[in-house]
Amino acid sequence: MELRARVNMMRCSHRLLCSLFLAAALFGVAAAATRRHDWDISYQFTSPDCVRKLAVTINGHTPGPTIRAVQGDTIVVNVKNSLLTENVAIHWHGIRQIGTPWADGTEGVTQCPILPGDTFAYTFVVDRPGTYMYHAHYGMQRSAGLNGMIVVEVAPGAAGDGEREPFRYDGEHTVLLNDWWHRSTYEQAAGLASVPMVWVGEPQSLLINGRGRFVNCSSSPATAASCNVTHPDCAPAVFAVVPGKTYRFRIASVTSLSALNFEIEGHEMTVVEADGHYVKPFVVKNLNIYSGETYSVLITADQDPNRNYWLASNVVSRKPATPTGTAWALNNVSFTLPHTPYLVAMKRGLLGAFDQRPPPETYAGAAAFDVYAVQGNPNATTSDAPYRLRFGSVVDRDAPVAPPRPRLLGARLRRRPVRPGVLQNANMLAANSSETHPWHLHGHDFWVLGHGAGRFDPAVHPAAAYNLRDPIMKNTVAVHPFGWTAIRFRADNPGVWAFHCHIEAHFFMGMGIVFEEGVDRVGDLPPEIMGCGKTRGGH
Amino acid sequence: MELRARVNMMRCSHRLLCSLFLAAALFGVAAAATRRHDWDISYQFTSPDCVRKLAVTINGHTPGPTIRAVQGDTIVVNVKNSLLTENVAIHWHGIRQIGTPWADGTEGVTQCPILPGDTFAYTFVVDRPGTYMYHAHYGMQRSAGLNGMIVVEVAPGAAGDGEREPFRYDGEHTVLLNDWWHRSTYEQAAGLASVPMVWVGEPQSLLINGRGRFVNCSSSPATAASCNVTHPDCAPAVFAVVPGKTYRFRIASVTSLSALNFEIEGHEMTVVEADGHYVKPFVVKNLNIYSGETYSVLITADQDPNRNYWLASNVVSRKPATPTGTAWALNNVSFTLPHTPYLVAMKRGLLGAFDQRPPPETYAGAAAFDVYAVQGNPNATTSDAPYRLRFGSVVDRDAPVAPPRPRLLGARLRRRPVRPGVLQNANMLAANSSETHPWHLHGHDFWVLGHGAGRFDPAVHPAAAYNLRDPIMKNTVAVHPFGWTAIRFRADNPGVWAFHCHIEAHFFMGMGIVFEEGVDRVGDLPPEIMGCGKTRGGH
Repeated sequence: MELRARVNMMRCSHRLLCSLFLAAALFGVAAAATRRHDWDISYQFTSPDCVRKLAVTINGHTPGPTIRAVQGDTIVVNVKNSLLTENVAIHWHGIRQIGTPWADGTEGVTQCPILPGDTFAYTFVVDRPGTYMYHAHYGMQRSAGLNGMIVVEVAPGAAGDGEREPFRYDGEHTVLLNDWWHRSTYEQAAGLASVPMVWVGEPQSLLINGRGRFVNCSSSPATAASCNVTHPDCAPAVFAVVPGKTYRFRIASVTSLSALNFEIEGHEMTVVEADGHYVKPFVVKNLNIYSGETYSVLITADQDPNRNYWLASNVVSRKPATPTGTAWALNNVSFTLPHTPYLVAMKRGLLGAFDQRPPPETYAGAAAFDVYAVQGNPNATTSDAPYRLRFGSVVDRDAPVAPPRPRLLGARLRRRPVRPGVLQNANMLAANSSETHPWHLHGHDFWVLGHGAGRFDPAVHPAAAYNLRDPIMKNTVAVHPFGWTAIRFRADNPGVWAFHCHIEAHFFMGMGIVFEEGVDRVGDLPPEIMGCGKTRGGH
Repeated sequence: MELRARVNMMRCSHRLLCSLFLAAALFGVAAAATRRHDWDISYQFTSPDCVRKLAVTINGHTPGPTIRAVQGDTIVVNVKNSLLTENVAIHWHGIRQIGTPWADGTEGVTQCPILPGDTFAYTFVVDRPGTYMYHAHYGMQRSAGLNGMIVVEVAPGAAGDGEREPFRYDGEHTVLLNDWWHRSTYEQAAGLASVPMVWVGEPQSLLINGRGRFVNCSSSPATAASCNVTHPDCAPAVFAVVPGKTYRFRIASVTSLSALNFEIEGHEMTVVEADGHYVKPFVVKNLNIYSGETYSVLITADQDPNRNYWLASNVVSRKPATPTGTAWALNNVSFTLPHTPYLVAMKRGLLGAFDQRPPPETYAGAAAFDVYAVQGNPNATTSDAPYRLRFGSVVDRDAPVAPPRPRLLGARLRRRPVRPGVLQNANMLAANSSETHPWHLHGHDFWVLGHGAGRFDPAVHPAAAYNLRDPIMKNTVAVHPFGWTAIRFRADNPGVWAFHCHIEAHFFMGMGIVFEEGVDRVGDLPPEIMGCGKTRGGH
């Protein structure tokens, strides 16, 4: 599957206008401020790939508006839920919510959902420049259309020449990648929850900035009546560039399922940022991007200006017919979200809100676990028990993950990591099948210490395969089929944070855990985050 | 549109089994008891008319189970919401909830909705024998499948020969009538809420006890892939009868839109009950039944036992091409449900939860109002202001109702009604169009004093057209096109009660009001009904 959008080379014929355009892109915002947004969440009929479908929208649109701010700004988003019977919650993906753990937008973890008719104000500081995203974190609403981008610029300083990016560019574009299904998310979720499970299947289309084109528009009986190739919603996204100038493309993937490969026809890309962190620049012709990741690339419009160039994304790492397992789990424990947000239950000591027994630190037979073997027993325990971390400790997650049996080598609470944990990806229920899982951590970035193929060996790999000198920092990292990935972070952000596979159906089915750290240091909780589970009715 | 189900004449060949069958039907339940039900609300794929669709179900089924009880029993229904992101609330239609106004199940009026993952216990007494129903009272979930019947038998007394019905029968059947759309209720609601409004359109099928047959199953491209005429979900309902015996058919209509005509081929029906009240028996060949109404009819299986007889329902009172208006309103005020339940807001004196200004007692130009005129101005005020009744007063509602301009001649708070109000049905936006509106009152039954064609004239009609001697009691009454209907009830049930058109799309669009009466006499409110609006987060 492939989707293309056009890059238009524009000859800039008016010097003043061109200068204004570039200035706006570079210095369009003032210094630290409070930026308020009023969002109305509603159902709307949209045709993002030319096929009419009911979507969950922000102010009538999907994707929602790009939030633009300057490092240090306070963002206030008043989210009014105008859905009929459905609640919402919105996560600010990549924003660490330091001091505001209740604003992370993770239903069941940091807040009760926002009820129809209610308005919830998310207030948080964007403390670091970079490229981020937001999306619903409730049910499968992200896939239903509730998503968008966040761009945080460096603070320009009073004279407009303060902190600088470690690279220069003349203009920028945002590129939000997504995948899209014609069936409703209610139907997808009902299938996932049924026995036997009905998998969501491959997406019908890929979207760039909410626009795509269903290739079987006229030939598919199912869409014949609802497909209109001239619908303005599905006109390709166009990215205008001025010949000779250098552009920053801020790319985010909010896909539900698909790992994508991104390229701009005829142009090399210099990768300069990943998940809000500058990286040592490197040049690529194309870029793999997994759900939950963001990248910035620089391109120079140095090709023939008399034609257009395609910006394209393709599915990688999955065959359309990939058989999919029937469970997911961590250390044989499948995660279920409780109905009282952890943050409230832990802060207030509400017993019975979740399983008080600690989850397993490792799994039986970890040392001898055969990651290539077909998993014979699809049964895993269901639990909502969180991992409680000692505040300030360094956490290594060389925790294995596998569908249907991802394995977690425990949350080790050591000040100095001796043996890192690994996200280990094993075989699924069917033979020769294993998928890439992008794992996303809330409230933190983490160092990616290393990764490799096969079973992680704590006696060998840390010494042989770890980069402890200049590891990349990310908030989302891919764990490849039959492989492992080791990460490290310091538990220094008081709150309760989800850590989960960013494939929406996988998280929905239990592929995630929750960390608690320093919840006693969290300030008074806003009452607005309560109202469900054991916090219902004023309890 | 017509739907048929079979009545099977069975020769009863085994005397003991037949006797057991009849005894079970007549005396199947013991004296006053507490009857507990555990319901799990979830999405399930169903094929009620042979076309596969996602429905909201109770314990996996739509309709839900019939609640059977004996007069005086306490019913406890533990409703667990296992939907993904969607809340629920369930109304016990026809049960007056004397002393338990918080258990009426009307979202926004008597309770906050039940959140996903939460369980809410509805506890109430069924104080009167009769035929009732239950259904969701939130968004358009009733139409999505959340409905069923309630049968309350007369108390048999200790010796099994206590109170008796004023008629005899040998067995009984329940018949739940419904209409069914292939488009989801989310799509229907989004259309109703959009500008210009997109009307839900005529139903694709009619259902008897959740079973029907889409007539264009194979010919419609839209359903070709999802229609299976051999699906067990759409096998016709069969009502077995023994020749020579007399049966009570308890009939309820939970349709979203359709007024139906019900008949049993070759059999006359004796109507003996309406909305839980015995009526002077009368014989009909067919019966008009409006959404929200229940009837009991007696039939004797006195026809040729060697063949089957069709039980059929047909749409009446609407032409499929009926143009539909674009607003609804009462006294030019369109009702909007607030986000804090009235019952809580009024009991606790929460200011700002709803409009404190009283709604209009009548409407401008009422005396000269031309019910036949095309309504030129579709704009009506939106309000959530309730009508507050003096406790114990007799309320006459000769309140006019019209789509799109239903007119309410005020809530008169007189101990002795001098001039009754009328539900007046006027012309819609299009010429020569007016529909039948079945109005349903919560917490009460009412006397139907009279009805007539054209504009209600308070100087003429009460004397000329009212039956004050033996008026029928109902909880739902139809107001016919261009006609009026006068009702009366005593405001003697402390609580807050909805009064609205039972056509789901009409209520969704604002065709309803709320009465408050004696809320100071309501006992302590259960905290479980709170958690939304101004009762969120422990406020």
